[in-house]
Amino acid sequence: MSKGALALLIRSGDQNWAPERWRDRFRTALPGRDVVSIPDDAFDPLAIDYAAVWKPKHGELAAFPNLKVIFNLGAGVDAVLSDPQRPDVPLVRVAVDDLTSRMTEYVVMHTLMHHRQQSYLAGCQARSEWAPREQWPASAVRVGVLGLGVLGRHAAEMLHALGFQVAGWSVTRKSLTGISCYAGHGELGTFLARTDILVCLLPLTPQTSGLLRRELFLQLAKDGPLGGPVVINAGRGGLQNESDILDCLDNGVLKAVTLDVFEAEPLNPASRLWRHPAVTISPHNAADTDPDTISSYVAGQILQFEAGGTLENVVDRARGY
Amino acid sequence: MSKGALALLIRSGDQNWAPERWRDRFRTALPGRDVVSIPDDAFDPLAIDYAAVWKPKHGELAAFPNLKVIFNLGAGVDAVLSDPQRPDVPLVRVAVDDLTSRMTEYVVMHTLMHHRQQSYLAGCQARSEWAPREQWPASAVRVGVLGLGVLGRHAAEMLHALGFQVAGWSVTRKSLTGISCYAGHGELGTFLARTDILVCLLPLTPQTSGLLRRELFLQLAKDGPLGGPVVINAGRGGLQNESDILDCLDNGVLKAVTLDVFEAEPLNPASRLWRHPAVTISPHNAADTDPDTISSYVAGQILQFEAGGTLENVVDRARGY
Repeated sequence: MSKGALALLIRSGDQNWAPERWRDRFRTALPGRDVVSIPDDAFDPLAIDYAAVWKPKHGELAAFPNLKVIFNLGAGVDAVLSDPQRPDVPLVRVAVDDLTSRMTEYVVMHTLMHHRQQSYLAGCQARSEWAPREQWPASAVRVGVLGLGVLGRHAAEMLHALGFQVAGWSVTRKSLTGISCYAGHGELGTFLARTDILVCLLPLTPQTSGLLRRELFLQLAKDGPLGGPVVINAGRGGLQNESDILDCLDNGVLKAVTLDVFEAEPLNPASRLWRHPAVTISPHNAADTDPDTISSYVAGQILQFEAGGTLENVVDRARGY
Repeated sequence: MSKGALALLIRSGDQNWAPERWRDRFRTALPGRDVVSIPDDAFDPLAIDYAAVWKPKHGELAAFPNLKVIFNLGAGVDAVLSDPQRPDVPLVRVAVDDLTSRMTEYVVMHTLMHHRQQSYLAGCQARSEWAPREQWPASAVRVGVLGLGVLGRHAAEMLHALGFQVAGWSVTRKSLTGISCYAGHGELGTFLARTDILVCLLPLTPQTSGLLRRELFLQLAKDGPLGGPVVINAGRGGLQNESDILDCLDNGVLKAVTLDVFEAEPLNPASRLWRHPAVTISPHNAADTDPDTISSYVAGQILQFEAGGTLENVVDRARGY
């Protein structure tokens, strides 16, 4: 009996996602097995047992009637879950330490840049101006992490180690040493009211879509040392309302934002976000993960599954993550 | 018997160092005791038991024949030790957790900014350009911390927690979990050869003066992921040769530098450092400490000393720190 074949369905304009390079990686990680890139490689759809995907088109996965498992090559599974024809098989998402630590690097760096007034200091340097400003300690700043999954938890713990006052919010209550944990919609307002810097690491689900909007921004703390609330979104662009963000920056409801994700990516060069002085933009690179690490992870899961073991990080369809 | 009087000798152009505000703080921290600011307040020099100083002029301390202890209001004692007429009494330096964590905030933020290519990404934003570049993980970057005192140790440990490969160098050997410790001049070359980002937190002494110069830069690792060695100096300006730094940036020996301290402060507006694209400048504010924390610390030490206790953090004059 031949080993179950793996189909790759990768749809991204980004060159890091070149399908032929992923095919090479998976052929190395799974020697002796058929690995095909769809739609480039012709292959019998009935022979496909596994699919490894990144932003597949709706309906594409339905072409494989014998599919056993879908592996999502990143942390966010919203593109797969929103496919109405998605086969009813386990969906596994990538959860590797490498992705987690990269996200923490991003969150820590941007939180520190707001806290340490880096934008002001860069302006001083551009004017050859030596003008130190009063600087408060991290212990005077209340960071709130929206979403306490693997990523949110790790980032929250590192921010706590740096001395920030850290709280977290999640749908189901978590318990983390040194971090105040809020849970459910009933406690969201209290969490926001004590938050100077809001870090969003939520998954995109029908419940979280558009959450980062005016109503939420208005609930953030106004009395913190930064002179107004700051929002960092490294979750998904669909979580934010960009028109509300610009309005709230202009009318002083928000002090500054850092965005790694956008409603449409790549961000349109005409977007006013690029040029707003209180906006820091990164091109959805907060947590690029080493492709070799991802393909090894998926290969390991396939071998474990075929040996009768349990799949890890299977997405709960009801929750959406 | 009246309590020993405290003289404040504070010489800094920076408004954070306004002597009258320090006098108020010390009067609050030491109720019922004479606290005078020199030279503004007239006072019998024979009645002065303690001096709290920041960059006093050479010879000023010699005016107090009954001086028992000198308290330096910051971590760097070079301005006091270089005074040839300094009275032969214990010199205590400020070592408070607040200063340590602020320095770590600075070191972590600037290390991450180099590692995460923040200068490139800011350039992309300025051009409204979505152009993600390959990003390596922290585990691919070798950070070397020069100086493993209280500040260096704390920063090294936090960088290690973030996933960097961290080594440290100190005159006497230290032992730190997860951090490779090098010691003495014989091991400096090996330490530099494995270092992509050099973080300098050394005290300024006759031995370390001008250490950050071409010869040292040439010994740093050339094969790291950043495309060339990076230097972050948050120690003292006297540790660096600014002319060598500019030359080495121009000829590619160094990739980038972040400087919080300068040979002369404030940095001259005419200095080419301000405008060099590979230089990040901050106005000696890496670790401003809350003045209330410092004055409480000094007041506590005075009371402990008068009760027959031991002074903490007394400077070793032979070592110079």
